[in-house]
Amino acid sequence: MFDQVERGLTLSDRAYETTVRSLRTKLLAAHFALRETRRQVIVIISGADGAGKGELVHRFAEWLDPRGLVTHAFWDDSDEETQRPHFYRFWKAMPGAGRVGVFFGSWYTRPIIDRVSRVRRKRDFIPELDRIVAFEHMLTQGGVTFVKLWLHLAKKAQRDRLEENEKDGKIGPDDWEHFKQYDRFREVSERALIHTNEPWSPWRVIDATDRRYREVAAGKALLAALEGALKGVSSTAASAGRGPGAARGRSRAAVAKSGVRVVRASTTVAARTYDPGPSLLDAVDLTQTLSPKRYDDEMDELQERLARLTWAAREKKVAMVLAFEGWDAAGKGSAIRRVTWALDPRLYRVIGVAAPTDEEKAQHYLWRFWRHIPRDGRVASFDRSWYGRVLVERVEGFAPVEDWDRSYDEINAFERQLTDHGIALAKFWIHISPEEQLRRFKERQRVKYKQFKITPDDWRNRKKLPAYRLAVEEMLARCEAADAPWTVVAGNDKRFARVQILRTVCDRLEGALG
Amino acid sequence: MFDQVERGLTLSDRAYETTVRSLRTKLLAAHFALRETRRQVIVIISGADGAGKGELVHRFAEWLDPRGLVTHAFWDDSDEETQRPHFYRFWKAMPGAGRVGVFFGSWYTRPIIDRVSRVRRKRDFIPELDRIVAFEHMLTQGGVTFVKLWLHLAKKAQRDRLEENEKDGKIGPDDWEHFKQYDRFREVSERALIHTNEPWSPWRVIDATDRRYREVAAGKALLAALEGALKGVSSTAASAGRGPGAARGRSRAAVAKSGVRVVRASTTVAARTYDPGPSLLDAVDLTQTLSPKRYDDEMDELQERLARLTWAAREKKVAMVLAFEGWDAAGKGSAIRRVTWALDPRLYRVIGVAAPTDEEKAQHYLWRFWRHIPRDGRVASFDRSWYGRVLVERVEGFAPVEDWDRSYDEINAFERQLTDHGIALAKFWIHISPEEQLRRFKERQRVKYKQFKITPDDWRNRKKLPAYRLAVEEMLARCEAADAPWTVVAGNDKRFARVQILRTVCDRLEGALG
Repeated sequence: MFDQVERGLTLSDRAYETTVRSLRTKLLAAHFALRETRRQVIVIISGADGAGKGELVHRFAEWLDPRGLVTHAFWDDSDEETQRPHFYRFWKAMPGAGRVGVFFGSWYTRPIIDRVSRVRRKRDFIPELDRIVAFEHMLTQGGVTFVKLWLHLAKKAQRDRLEENEKDGKIGPDDWEHFKQYDRFREVSERALIHTNEPWSPWRVIDATDRRYREVAAGKALLAALEGALKGVSSTAASAGRGPGAARGRSRAAVAKSGVRVVRASTTVAARTYDPGPSLLDAVDLTQTLSPKRYDDEMDELQERLARLTWAAREKKVAMVLAFEGWDAAGKGSAIRRVTWALDPRLYRVIGVAAPTDEEKAQHYLWRFWRHIPRDGRVASFDRSWYGRVLVERVEGFAPVEDWDRSYDEINAFERQLTDHGIALAKFWIHISPEEQLRRFKERQRVKYKQFKITPDDWRNRKKLPAYRLAVEEMLARCEAADAPWTVVAGNDKRFARVQILRTVCDRLEGALG
Repeated sequence: MFDQVERGLTLSDRAYETTVRSLRTKLLAAHFALRETRRQVIVIISGADGAGKGELVHRFAEWLDPRGLVTHAFWDDSDEETQRPHFYRFWKAMPGAGRVGVFFGSWYTRPIIDRVSRVRRKRDFIPELDRIVAFEHMLTQGGVTFVKLWLHLAKKAQRDRLEENEKDGKIGPDDWEHFKQYDRFREVSERALIHTNEPWSPWRVIDATDRRYREVAAGKALLAALEGALKGVSSTAASAGRGPGAARGRSRAAVAKSGVRVVRASTTVAARTYDPGPSLLDAVDLTQTLSPKRYDDEMDELQERLARLTWAAREKKVAMVLAFEGWDAAGKGSAIRRVTWALDPRLYRVIGVAAPTDEEKAQHYLWRFWRHIPRDGRVASFDRSWYGRVLVERVEGFAPVEDWDRSYDEINAFERQLTDHGIALAKFWIHISPEEQLRRFKERQRVKYKQFKITPDDWRNRKKLPAYRLAVEEMLARCEAADAPWTVVAGNDKRFARVQILRTVCDRLEGALG
């Protein structure tokens, strides 16, 4: 891969000036056109030390419209970043719809460096690259176009560059030390590039010896990507807002061909032929109850246990994420409060998931959950969650079928990233019978301070129970994993439900604490 | 202040139940009505150890609509927070329009604790309280209603509480140690409360001995504040979106009466009778030029100097904020690039200020600048800035006169917070003559890749030159401070301008490095 580009290509001053003038005009036109779309373009600038990566960042800042450009250098992580799953920092830097994000450093940096220095073992390296492929694939399908640039220097060219820098006094103490590793760095990077060189996010390797040549080559690659992104725009995206990508048609096949193991995708069957198997909801015994006396006793004990566990989790820097889903009036809010009452207010946050803001709408649907992932040692309770994608967005038609259908895999990969980071994850579906729901609706209408909880939406949703039920069953079946299992709660008796939830939370956290 | 509440008030179980039932209904109704407004309610929960602050947080979460409620505990700051001015963490937690934010801990916590332990000297304590008053006053005028609750325990009550906790095994190792400081803590807090007990943000001190009494008292205080906030709503706020506060009419007088020294408000004259004095723009010699040869030499030298300085600033953890303002076509963008080219892309960010997003519109106008304040050791360049408030928003009538008029003081206080934290601040107004502007407009129309820079807005703004000029002169005069001075750049000659800017940036950073 690298051999092929080592051709010592250069560009004269005059050729550069002429080419750049026309290139800038076209780049700007494309960049402006992009603003009118919902597509995001991510430019990854990576490559060898001394290859001019920083200079290229400056050049793009000069050539593009600054108002549609966000530049982000991944370096020197804050503790808000290191105390969260690895991909959090990249989600945080994501450019909004219609914008270009230039990334100096990326999700490739750490795996490659760690592999070069042998901090990461060979058998962990390929799975990490697979995760990257799945991540880029997900973003591509969500409307992102990637421009992955690798500025390459042949061994002699890098030596020349370092000698030049040394003369100018610009050399760092480690530069020659790194240079000794040239061959190993080259081998590892080449492997990474080949493994992640997918049709929907190909690498562009550029011989970086000549400044003018590399800048023009990079600019042309960016222009081609921008123009591709513009062609791929779907005229009107659904309310979820993500148009299908240009590569949509071939994506599934391409993933299969490239050998990517889409993480935990046990079900690659198209949803429309999906057979959920035996009902998981029917299996729940809704007649289970708990007497007030036993409820009080168990509640006291469990809340004390949870308080102890969360302080231990803070000590051990283990975070917890709780996702609460359930039928309308199933008691999500009151169940969450029974959990949080056990916690010191400094240790938890409750995230009520409502309509997305416009900053959220300009991003992939998972972005608005990533921004609330807790730091190590903290608890986040989501009152409704990312599962809205395959529940309300599916049933109400807010997301087209091809969007929500692939979300099962995306959600599994998302949760896997949380649990891989050591986060304790518990997911609850609070189940109640339609009769119990009706009884509660009527009660809510009766009791004054509960009236706010009942809206025309609730009655409307009730009419769609069969469609929701299908969606719930499919969700429970397809998003199940050993470290991210669903707990279907028997919710007809509130006391029974709350104790079941609290006990599960305790067990899960205890398990994560080891 | 505390003596008066030590009356050992209690509430029976039955009285509590009855009161709470009706209180919850009213609280919910008010909370729902708030959602329809642009007002923000901030509840500060503070007071003695063991007074039940955490419990009260839980109670409010139970009583209010969770979808309109944000709870934030200030504790255990991340380095993203400690590496920025003290108030950054509070801006970050601000509830949006129509919402209630419950703050467990606040801007009072650190000053009081530091004063109790004598880390903060007496003569620094009062100025800090003054800054708090100014901060709350600014937010109040921006549409925030404060509910400042202080849960008080008499000495005996606190001893009883600690003994009780000890029996339950719930006592911490430092609790009795803290208790020894009871008298001092009481004295310092009382002084803080009296000093910050303003008509627009009064303290509510509650005897916290009895759980039922304190919860009902706190709930009633919240209800009164919510209802006050609802009455204070202006029917239609201007596009800037901040309705005048209920306390608006008396605010200026009240500030004067309370002895608050509004920070650096050298000009308290109403803007409408404002006499800017001799023109600061006319004083600029626009005929100054620089030859290409000297430009190249000076530029090389300055960029090298700046590169060295920014690495030193990173070492010494000094941040820099650059604000670029100027006439249309004055060359802000290209000047910023001449600065950033000298910098490692990992050290700086450029923030292009365009129309606010809806998350930004739901906040005080300074919020969207606070979110981009750099961490220690980094550089942020604002391409247009918070001065838009007194430039475009003033001239175009986006903000009503009373809003932009008080912004001069607010901006001065804002910049003071940056420089107090040690941030190097440089502010540029790039000045060009109307003739030079016209020449550049025409050039932009001619050169293809510059055409995007010229819009109908530019021609429209040109017609309003006199109004803009007035605004600029007033801004330069009223927002000037020793550590936050304006640099009015002679911009007719781009080379001269860029060198002037780069040299100023270097000098300012060198000064901050000491």
